[in-house]
Amino acid sequence: MRGVVMNAPGDIEVVEREDPMIIEPTDAVVRITATCICGSDLWPYRGVEPVDHTPMGHEYVGVVEEIGDAVQTLKVGDFVVGSFCISDNTCPICRAGYQSRCVHGSFVAGTIGTQAEKARIPYADGTLVATPGQPDPELIPSLLAASDVLGTGWFAAVAAEVGPGKAVAVVGDGAVGLMGVLAAKQLGAEQIIAMSRHADRQALAREFGATDIVEVRGDAGVAAVRELTDGLGAHSVIEAVGTQEAMLQAIRSTRPGGYIGYVGVAHEGVALPADELFFSEVHLHGGPAPVRRFLPELIDLIWRREIDPGKVFDLSLPLEQAAEGYQAMDERRAIKTLLTVQETRESVS
Amino acid sequence: MRGVVMNAPGDIEVVEREDPMIIEPTDAVVRITATCICGSDLWPYRGVEPVDHTPMGHEYVGVVEEIGDAVQTLKVGDFVVGSFCISDNTCPICRAGYQSRCVHGSFVAGTIGTQAEKARIPYADGTLVATPGQPDPELIPSLLAASDVLGTGWFAAVAAEVGPGKAVAVVGDGAVGLMGVLAAKQLGAEQIIAMSRHADRQALAREFGATDIVEVRGDAGVAAVRELTDGLGAHSVIEAVGTQEAMLQAIRSTRPGGYIGYVGVAHEGVALPADELFFSEVHLHGGPAPVRRFLPELIDLIWRREIDPGKVFDLSLPLEQAAEGYQAMDERRAIKTLLTVQETRESVS
Repeated sequence: MRGVVMNAPGDIEVVEREDPMIIEPTDAVVRITATCICGSDLWPYRGVEPVDHTPMGHEYVGVVEEIGDAVQTLKVGDFVVGSFCISDNTCPICRAGYQSRCVHGSFVAGTIGTQAEKARIPYADGTLVATPGQPDPELIPSLLAASDVLGTGWFAAVAAEVGPGKAVAVVGDGAVGLMGVLAAKQLGAEQIIAMSRHADRQALAREFGATDIVEVRGDAGVAAVRELTDGLGAHSVIEAVGTQEAMLQAIRSTRPGGYIGYVGVAHEGVALPADELFFSEVHLHGGPAPVRRFLPELIDLIWRREIDPGKVFDLSLPLEQAAEGYQAMDERRAIKTLLTVQETRESVS
Repeated sequence: MRGVVMNAPGDIEVVEREDPMIIEPTDAVVRITATCICGSDLWPYRGVEPVDHTPMGHEYVGVVEEIGDAVQTLKVGDFVVGSFCISDNTCPICRAGYQSRCVHGSFVAGTIGTQAEKARIPYADGTLVATPGQPDPELIPSLLAASDVLGTGWFAAVAAEVGPGKAVAVVGDGAVGLMGVLAAKQLGAEQIIAMSRHADRQALAREFGATDIVEVRGDAGVAAVRELTDGLGAHSVIEAVGTQEAMLQAIRSTRPGGYIGYVGVAHEGVALPADELFFSEVHLHGGPAPVRRFLPELIDLIWRREIDPGKVFDLSLPLEQAAEGYQAMDERRAIKTLLTVQETRESVS
């Protein structure tokens, strides 16, 4: 089959990869309908994380092509949405809602590589969720968004205890930040302050439910959020960047006793000053989103057309043009790139 | 009046200080019955924090001697317990339960100095809570504990979401850690793992409700907690030290999705690695305890003799011997020192 590998930073190639097969009885092989490029894929692309001929991609929707003998909740032909974390969904950690840290868990990224025609998904029952039927084509982008960016933004909003009457600030206007805005709106936030310096992202944030836009960053950004919240800071802050600056901005924008949901992938060297955190008296929670916890609810909202997170994709390319998709995101010409998988390539594999 | 000042690190003196008076109409002057020395008082004593002829003490119980015209909930003669944070208890932050970050708030430490015969307490209605009547003398130590160490340990347990069925680990066997054990017991924890290397503190921890003692620290301590919790880590971890090592031990002892309540005062230079925190997927909350939130409940528990936190005081001295109290705690000869205020000194002031 055809699949994307990153040979080295900035070097994306679509190559022939071995067809995935059932190995464990709990596996499923999924024929990918659509996949996409994640903001986190840009870290190795920019040389910030190591990469060496790595199969890329961890977001995916598609059709179950084959299942192992132990798979019970899925059948061949089901249309499925998968999480970027493999989970058995039965261990104590999964049952507590943290499928992203399943005791049998692993990350799809870097190993399976779903920017490809097919993927072997371990613990299929615990990782994949079938849609109620075959989706209309216009639902595909939204279902694909549920696989990571929507699930991640939603987790951030839940971690930030967003709810009715709350003032919410969102640090980061990438796909996840924008999904955080959408989630905040759905969860009933009264005020949603999107921090963004890009007109196109501001427009999308407004469409998803932002009530205020703050263009300034750092101390000025913190001051602007405080001014919009009676001088107290936001009740809930969603952090969707992962840098030191963004984390500090989130901490300083939150009122004492408030909540930060942080999902920007923190990298080595980012450190939080414990004394500032201590006296800020905020709640801090985040990490890799347990998307599987939210998938049934998110699929239902999409299926009933109550939310349209697929709008976050502003570039759609065939899988074979993945390199252009990476470049467009790296140069910020695109917020997020959807890759359609060409059925016709099947005959090649 | 007589009062304790720390002239310089290690230099404690009881001196004549000016008698406090009503300044604002919301003030009360309290005649101190008992006060104590806090673990945090040892930071300047050891030269870790700056100190320069500073009036010491922020824990106190006593009798209202005078009130300002605007004070409504207290009358002269009331026996009161005060928090170490001044709070109006009416601002939006106080109403949300964070009286330690009241918009009109300030710390008692370093300014008022309750290791003295009297103290002026601003925002008396919002800071002090009257007991149901004049307490029996044997209740004084427990009521005094509520002023800080019990309230702080209790807050840590609440922040760590301690509750029925939970496995709780407590990092730190000082007075606050021991009060965390007591709080965890009261809040219904199933398993309470106290981390302590001192036999006397272990005994007290057992008395307060600890089910397990872990003597090792660092990686070995983390491994021991995991072994006691099905390899998963504790649901709830109380951090009551404030060092880098203790914070990392707390993070690593918590299961994914679990909660850390941290109340050890973090000092400059302590930094949390954001990447480790991210992938640990724990909830982190703490800071200066909003003791005022819990005071009515804690006073009630003490008054009904359901808890006996006063046992944490293992040394009692007259105010004039404060220097010996500091030394005993510094040398770990005492867990916590209670200072009784000599009524007879009144005539001197």
